[in-house]
Amino acid sequence: MFTLDLRLEASSIFVADLALCQARLQADVRWPWLVLIPRRDGLRELDELEPHELDQLMREILVAGQAVRAIGEVAARPVEKLNVGALGNVVAQLHIHVVGRRSDDPAWPGPVWGFDAPVGYGAEEAAAAVALARAKL
Amino acid sequence: MFTLDLRLEASSIFVADLALCQARLQADVRWPWLVLIPRRDGLRELDELEPHELDQLMREILVAGQAVRAIGEVAARPVEKLNVGALGNVVAQLHIHVVGRRSDDPAWPGPVWGFDAPVGYGAEEAAAAVALARAKL
Repeated sequence: MFTLDLRLEASSIFVADLALCQARLQADVRWPWLVLIPRRDGLRELDELEPHELDQLMREILVAGQAVRAIGEVAARPVEKLNVGALGNVVAQLHIHVVGRRSDDPAWPGPVWGFDAPVGYGAEEAAAAVALARAKL
Repeated sequence: MFTLDLRLEASSIFVADLALCQARLQADVRWPWLVLIPRRDGLRELDELEPHELDQLMREILVAGQAVRAIGEVAARPVEKLNVGALGNVVAQLHIHVVGRRSDDPAWPGPVWGFDAPVGYGAEEAAAAVALARAKL
């Protein structure tokens, strides 16, 4: 059983259901950014996953990183550093951020979480980013 | 071969060498906070680790979370949420933060990274936190 938190749903766009996680594009054009949400209800912390799920999660984090890099390449803003974070201070449902960073991005070198207001995608840009991510996942 | 970045060394206190990572206590009493640094030179991104190292890293992240919880308990400030992050925007050497958060902590619900200036441990407090962490790792 998997119910996506409404705030995660509102702030991101569906990309794909992977073996463990639902992958979503963060609706913020400032960074190539995917969010992975393990598709099981009631999860808050990493240690609530089974060992084999944790290994799978690590693999999905790596492919999400490749997808994020692909989105950055197409936008002619190649990723210089991946940031991976599981915070959950605002939305408790376990979710993992995979964000592509550049030294000229607005929040660099600070974290992206909570940094100013998101800048939404245009419809075509969003569709292109989702397609790119899907091809990598 | 393992050489610790000098900035990581200066901002944290040695706790233990685990199978993969060196575990260090972040020298900031505002949060129970461990840093895991895989003990191999030249690493910047998670995908530079071998698959078996990634699985081991995930296990070390979980035990670091238990150690962080233990530090919070003894300080009578039980952890409400773990934050796990691999950023590396300031220090490139691959390192993973495991931080205990509470809804009454100074940066809540924002991230801790870059939040104001660190508040150092007293010598006794630091020794107690290191001993607690060692007992859990």
